[in-house]
Amino acid sequence: MSNFKVGILGATGAVGQKFIRLLQDHPWFTIEALGASERSAGKTYREAANWVEATPMPESVAGLTVRDCKSADFGDVDFVFSGLDSSVATEVEGEFARAGIPVISNAKNYRQDPTVPLLVPEVNPDHITMIESQTFTADKSGWIVTNPNCVVVPLVTTLKPLAEKYGIRSVILTSMQAISGAGYPGVPSLDILGNVIPYIGDEEPKVESEPLKLLGILENGKVTFADFTVHATATRVPVINGHLLSIAVGLDSKPASIEEVAELFRKWKSPVADLGLPTAPAFPMHLYEDQRYPQPRLHADSEGGMQTAVGRLRKAGVLDISYVAMAHNTVRGAAGGAILNAELLVKKGFIQ
Amino acid sequence: MSNFKVGILGATGAVGQKFIRLLQDHPWFTIEALGASERSAGKTYREAANWVEATPMPESVAGLTVRDCKSADFGDVDFVFSGLDSSVATEVEGEFARAGIPVISNAKNYRQDPTVPLLVPEVNPDHITMIESQTFTADKSGWIVTNPNCVVVPLVTTLKPLAEKYGIRSVILTSMQAISGAGYPGVPSLDILGNVIPYIGDEEPKVESEPLKLLGILENGKVTFADFTVHATATRVPVINGHLLSIAVGLDSKPASIEEVAELFRKWKSPVADLGLPTAPAFPMHLYEDQRYPQPRLHADSEGGMQTAVGRLRKAGVLDISYVAMAHNTVRGAAGGAILNAELLVKKGFIQ
Amino acid sequence: MSNFKVGILGATGAVGQKFIRLLQDHPWFTIEALGASERSAGKTYREAANWVEATPMPESVAGLTVRDCKSADFGDVDFVFSGLDSSVATEVEGEFARAGIPVISNAKNYRQDPTVPLLVPEVNPDHITMIESQTFTADKSGWIVTNPNCVVVPLVTTLKPLAEKYGIRSVILTSMQAISGAGYPGVPSLDILGNVIPYIGDEEPKVESEPLKLLGILENGKVTFADFTVHATATRVPVINGHLLSIAVGLDSKPASIEEVAELFRKWKSPVADLGLPTAPAFPMHLYEDQRYPQPRLHADSEGGMQTAVGRLRKAGVLDISYVAMAHNTVRGAAGGAILNAELLVKKGFIQ
Amino acid sequence: MSNFKVGILGATGAVGQKFIRLLQDHPWFTIEALGASERSAGKTYREAANWVEATPMPESVAGLTVRDCKSADFGDVDFVFSGLDSSVATEVEGEFARAGIPVISNAKNYRQDPTVPLLVPEVNPDHITMIESQTFTADKSGWIVTNPNCVVVPLVTTLKPLAEKYGIRSVILTSMQAISGAGYPGVPSLDILGNVIPYIGDEEPKVESEPLKLLGILENGKVTFADFTVHATATRVPVINGHLLSIAVGLDSKPASIEEVAELFRKWKSPVADLGLPTAPAFPMHLYEDQRYPQPRLHADSEGGMQTAVGRLRKAGVLDISYVAMAHNTVRGAAGGAILNAELLVKKGFIQ
Repeated sequence: MSNFKVGILGATGAVGQKFIRLLQDHPWFTIEALGASERSAGKTYREAANWVEATPMPESVAGLTVRDCKSADFGDVDFVFSGLDSSVATEVEGEFARAGIPVISNAKNYRQDPTVPLLVPEVNPDHITMIESQTFTADKSGWIVTNPNCVVVPLVTTLKPLAEKYGIRSVILTSMQAISGAGYPGVPSLDILGNVIPYIGDEEPKVESEPLKLLGILENGKVTFADFTVHATATRVPVINGHLLSIAVGLDSKPASIEEVAELFRKWKSPVADLGLPTAPAFPMHLYEDQRYPQPRLHADSEGGMQTAVGRLRKAGVLDISYVAMAHNTVRGAAGGAILNAELLVKKGFIQ
Repeated sequence: MSNFKVGILGATGAVGQKFIRLLQDHPWFTIEALGASERSAGKTYREAANWVEATPMPESVAGLTVRDCKSADFGDVDFVFSGLDSSVATEVEGEFARAGIPVISNAKNYRQDPTVPLLVPEVNPDHITMIESQTFTADKSGWIVTNPNCVVVPLVTTLKPLAEKYGIRSVILTSMQAISGAGYPGVPSLDILGNVIPYIGDEEPKVESEPLKLLGILENGKVTFADFTVHATATRVPVINGHLLSIAVGLDSKPASIEEVAELFRKWKSPVADLGLPTAPAFPMHLYEDQRYPQPRLHADSEGGMQTAVGRLRKAGVLDISYVAMAHNTVRGAAGGAILNAELLVKKGFIQ
Repeated sequence: MSNFKVGILGATGAVGQKFIRLLQDHPWFTIEALGASERSAGKTYREAANWVEATPMPESVAGLTVRDCKSADFGDVDFVFSGLDSSVATEVEGEFARAGIPVISNAKNYRQDPTVPLLVPEVNPDHITMIESQTFTADKSGWIVTNPNCVVVPLVTTLKPLAEKYGIRSVILTSMQAISGAGYPGVPSLDILGNVIPYIGDEEPKVESEPLKLLGILENGKVTFADFTVHATATRVPVINGHLLSIAVGLDSKPASIEEVAELFRKWKSPVADLGLPTAPAFPMHLYEDQRYPQPRLHADSEGGMQTAVGRLRKAGVLDISYVAMAHNTVRGAAGGAILNAELLVKKGFIQ
Repeated sequence: MSNFKVGILGATGAVGQKFIRLLQDHPWFTIEALGASERSAGKTYREAANWVEATPMPESVAGLTVRDCKSADFGDVDFVFSGLDSSVATEVEGEFARAGIPVISNAKNYRQDPTVPLLVPEVNPDHITMIESQTFTADKSGWIVTNPNCVVVPLVTTLKPLAEKYGIRSVILTSMQAISGAGYPGVPSLDILGNVIPYIGDEEPKVESEPLKLLGILENGKVTFADFTVHATATRVPVINGHLLSIAVGLDSKPASIEEVAELFRKWKSPVADLGLPTAPAFPMHLYEDQRYPQPRLHADSEGGMQTAVGRLRKAGVLDISYVAMAHNTVRGAAGGAILNAELLVKKGFIQ
């Protein structure tokens, strides 16, 4: 696999920093360019960024001069990752795509665009061909691919095998979300220390809508959304990394037993398992038998933060089954998910 | 109201200590006797107890000699509160009742006994008459009354008006429970700091069954359980006090609007509101409009820890409505609830 | 004691909110006016303030219209409390004083002014007469009194009896400070959850200098600073309220025994104990014998948050003695301290 | 380097588990035998241990049968690591040594034995030869080597270069210690969540005495203790891993400048740096310039948890200099330190 030069938009933010850390030793991708707001442009990254990752800022990026988020300044990259804030992502990502620079974005702005894939490689890799219907450039050189909200990743990873085998009728979930999901400075400590906040602004609509596109059927370049209802309550808990979800699911056909569902989870094989994607976890989903597991602090980093952990699988008196699921929100649910998308795009020939 | 002499069984434990603190200045009840295990009996309370309440141990109890939990040693009290561990409560509470000493218990052991009231004054005060069918003593002088599990209190407090107006078909809830619910030493800090544990042993069966008795119909001295299903997932979060519940409810008849439900909650009046019970909160339920509320650290102490806080009331795409509810688990959900039961028992003439 | 009308400058901030809560039922002082930045002026307090106190915003202030922090708008008050940010306190407080409105300030700006009392009633009540040398107005109607930094209060409260009996030569301390000391939003949760930050900007110089003025000798209207050295290391810990200090002190003359020092602490009597100040704690200092105490979460609220808790008193192999001290940083160390200052000023006739 | 078979005593405890995790892929040492209490002996390790490490229990040990801690059952190992509780370590470790099995212990029991090295490879590697004066066996085949208390490691690592260049007169320190230092279940969450406990039983005497042996001079097989005084206050904070120390040091001769001390720290080279010990950190000490650093949550894992982090180096008004130091208490301060000792013992030919 040849090496690709990548740019990072929103490089000084929390997601941008996570991109930098995860790409530090990537076998295919080399960070060539960093983009941030006008306030940072022109400074070295060392000067511009308030580095919040636990490991030191890589020397390879510390000396890079931060650029404006304009495609004209990114002529030397093969594609860009975007960790942009939603307040600017529509305009900036669109401008890059129209200039022929592919954008692999973590921002929410284009997730519901009917021509933009909302992609989780293990869940809906076929949606990747939606790119071909994008019209940012005449020659299809510029396009946008997105990954879903951080709660949605463990949700759809577990719903996918259930949908295939039983069909899904309804989902109720309560999320207990880590503070890193709010970026930096993010949640004031006075709000969350020894506390739970039962509301996260703008989170629930994403959790309720994105799974329907992700589990939708692609036909003739168009996604027909899945036909079930999700009801979500999003809460914030004093945890650093790892969103934990308590999920109940109503199914179209009934499992013969809860053990049958357990086997389904255990034996589920990712459709991209054999592609050799560097960031793909060996086991994208793990079912814990110990009722105390999974726990965010113990298990969020499993498989480099790319695994969805599942536990407490039970028959439910209301709806049909229930379980908890957990994934690392800033790795699997953000930068790591976008990098995995990029790897699939390379493998499928969309990035060359 | 004349003054009553009370004993506390399990006085050295976390619940026992909470009884002591809450009864410290009680207008009707005076602590006369403290009972604990053989290991503590004979010592002063100061020696026997590892006091964990934030306020100092009251001088009035510090010098009391701890007694064995045997009715023969409690001849000088009008009734006892029990904060006994479930491993001994069946035997000890039964022995007291048979000896003619009323027991007002926080232990789970007799909650499902068909002759024992499982009582929340604001929810099912009429169940109190079940005492009359108890056969511990021939003259009805000895009896047992229980209060429910700490999660169940805010749950049934909110379900009660819904049941009356709409009828309840099904309930799904996820609890985020405070560490004080596990007693002392309870949850190891290495397990819970910066973490969530998605399981609490033996909790969910209580949460799923007790509401059906509490909301059941008493006829001819016998409770017909309510006919709906509760599915609960109980988790532990790093919070000191206050269990927060994320609840979705399916209703038999549909509300005209969510505002109608909000008004129902706002205007709900406790059936014991006018009895002048000293521990009864002025407002047993409060509906917060601010979506960020209620929060355990901010609101668990409202109305002396006796109020159920409600928030985030919404229509739900699955089932019918959803909301969060929160109450102080060791006050409203344990010792404070038992004391309120005692006050109602006095008012209704069962304690004289 | 007649009633006084007071204004609060910086009323929307964390300190201002604490003033409001503490003054809610004050027997002498009634909140008449609230001042904040231009952005808030003209709005009702309910609209302007992001209320962060746990108890609800008092109705008596919620409807008040927030004013500009200009003396011309505060003609109806007897004096003002200032919780202003240090970036504006020099100018605003000076303007009020020059207009003849007394200012009782928690801001650091005038603490080291040679004519301004840096006042802790239990420590240096005589310094109050420094007011007479102030020249803000010709008729002495306008003046400024300050209270010290929140770490300094428990420090000087414990140093005072040591200074009187033994003389102080040197002090080394490490503070473990609560997050509420940084205001709101203050410390990001990502920085402090499960962590300690070994630095608090601008804190150590205040801790090292203010005790010297507080324990200085007032002669002819001028304070001669105390002649010892303080070395401080200020750290932030994940605690809501209560700054804990680990202190070692070198003394001029040696105690006969550590028990002698313990007795000194136990028997120390505040010089203002008999003045009937409403906010004065019955016991401004309490020496805990239990080595595990004091602890911020258990003891910060003792005596309404106005008590300095002391523990772990020991002979030290280096310097002479060591102990830990703790006080509520936003009550005793800020708004509550200022209110106590105001009460002393009333009692001494400076406010009439 | 040939491969050695090792046993672990106290294998089910928190320290024992850390030994297992750190030895999992060790290039020189293979876990052959696990010893624990009678209660566990005979069970598989999977059955016997309540595994609390975040990474899964290695399969290579899960099936091992736990043995009694008796030398007769450990005939197949080259030496043992001991993570035994101090209540049994004196007897068990002595029995192993007398049976000719070397013991490399984390327990405190033999640390102050005049023939037992209290060893930190970077600080006093020459003390290793004290082994030769041990008399557990006639042929010197059995011996004991210990590593110090977890607070002492970062303390002596920083004191060593100061002692060599300036001489040390006195040390005052306050430690803020992580909960993992108390083992499992260890500190109850109700005690430490949102709190600081200003006392850790039995900790301060170790912190005050062990540095004097570690920095002592070995002559003729006997250590003359260093001649200075340490005064320690040990506190517990809600941090998972990493003990942070606030240290002030009085020196015999004065540094020309604080920058001179900084250079001393930066340029200090470990005396075992060139021996190729697998667990030795490339940089055993790192001086942070950023005043906010080091922080336990961010930096405890640096260099595999084996680095001592230093920061906030300043001249002090009392004593001479002050700084903070931090190291991972269960890696560098316990199991990792013992493993490094074992590696040095191999390199020096004491284990063959």
